[in-house]
Amino acid sequence: MKIHIVKIGGQLINDRNVLKSSIKHFCELQGHKILVHGGGKKADLISKKMGIHQKMIEGRRKTDRDTLDIVVMTYAGMINKNIVALLQYYHCNAIGLCGADGNCMRSSLREKKTIDYGYVGDLSHSSINSSFLTCLLKHQITPVLCPITHDGMGQLLNTNADTIASYIAISLAKYYTIDLHFCFEKKGVLRDMKDSESYFHTMDFHLFQKIKKNHLISHGMRPKLENAFIALQHGVDHVSIGMTKYLNEVNNKTILCL
Amino acid sequence: MKIHIVKIGGQLINDRNVLKSSIKHFCELQGHKILVHGGGKKADLISKKMGIHQKMIEGRRKTDRDTLDIVVMTYAGMINKNIVALLQYYHCNAIGLCGADGNCMRSSLREKKTIDYGYVGDLSHSSINSSFLTCLLKHQITPVLCPITHDGMGQLLNTNADTIASYIAISLAKYYTIDLHFCFEKKGVLRDMKDSESYFHTMDFHLFQKIKKNHLISHGMRPKLENAFIALQHGVDHVSIGMTKYLNEVNNKTILCL
Repeated sequence: MKIHIVKIGGQLINDRNVLKSSIKHFCELQGHKILVHGGGKKADLISKKMGIHQKMIEGRRKTDRDTLDIVVMTYAGMINKNIVALLQYYHCNAIGLCGADGNCMRSSLREKKTIDYGYVGDLSHSSINSSFLTCLLKHQITPVLCPITHDGMGQLLNTNADTIASYIAISLAKYYTIDLHFCFEKKGVLRDMKDSESYFHTMDFHLFQKIKKNHLISHGMRPKLENAFIALQHGVDHVSIGMTKYLNEVNNKTILCL
Repeated sequence: MKIHIVKIGGQLINDRNVLKSSIKHFCELQGHKILVHGGGKKADLISKKMGIHQKMIEGRRKTDRDTLDIVVMTYAGMINKNIVALLQYYHCNAIGLCGADGNCMRSSLREKKTIDYGYVGDLSHSSINSSFLTCLLKHQITPVLCPITHDGMGQLLNTNADTIASYIAISLAKYYTIDLHFCFEKKGVLRDMKDSESYFHTMDFHLFQKIKKNHLISHGMRPKLENAFIALQHGVDHVSIGMTKYLNEVNNKTILCL
């Protein structure tokens, strides 16, 4: 059995029309598939409207109690359920899940070493309930996962969506052929941020290390690439970074390899 | 197979400690069970914080586009996922669902006759995907339903939680023995709103018609009783109104009968 795991984020989430076309492209993928989505800018907008000041630590948002409520509402509520409703419209029988649902993603509160990130959950290699996810797939149901996990003690936690996609891919790679796609608004990993056509057609681990060392990777791309290579190193068959409209094509994307 | 369907609302949702003890009582029910929850006052609080003015029509909230976003975030996001996380803590393997998830509750936009209620979805007797719900139960998964439905065209809609509980009970009553419990902060339907012990031990349809005619039912209780009797009239075996702490008892609640 082959499973496509598609992560969508960034601009694909922020605009309803862009989201709609991304969802349509996802639906055109044949066979078993899983969608993982990020939060885009929605949570920031809601925080602003509610007058909640977002605490930032080294460029990353601190998930305090108020922020946790907002990300749970936004990711598991508004974004997740609108995506599922769109999938149903396109005749894809989907189910929206956070980590607590069916105990599908269990995480641990990130340790407070030098920095306190707040209610952030880190995944481990035993976090993913792969038998539950494959049971859904076998019933022709497409799981749609939002970046909220739980600790098993009643606490919801905020978790990076790229990491979730990577860990799900790894947990299923033991039993199935996995195609993992990280999708966003660009054609792939760009050499030159000002030139949207300047994407790498392939990138191996050596090249990644080189451009990372020379600080040639944008802030948002670095964790995506880290997660992509971790997936490849743990048995995931194919990993790519690019647009949803080329999901079904071999070209027009950055293909990662070891 | 016997299925308990428990609806919780009102004060049980507003306070986390009260919610926690209600969830614990729900978990103590043996066998297959389904939880349906309302929204309490949370959506009003969020609206207020976001500076969104709630339009009221004859004492009922109009679900305009902004309000729909808020109820989806609050009901399907914050409330639903916190309940599921608590259930997992109590070792009840739950899954949170809105109507779009697994296409489990499909509704139609309420017709704009004299009043435009906005994005409100009405259920019919074919709305509930009972085979999906029983499939979950057979896999020992407890569905937790929030009062958000979908129209199948990509639109989420706001739907009354009491009505959802009643329609789910009716749809499953064809195949199973159904115990439907409407739970809130009082012991049952009160004769005297000032006396919390003055609950009816039983109420038949004739008595309901009589007290309705004499305007002796509170604003919130009337639709609950209407839904309760509709359920009984459509084959639901047992219907009661009362507190979660007496869920497992025969007394200390109002038992409805035809």
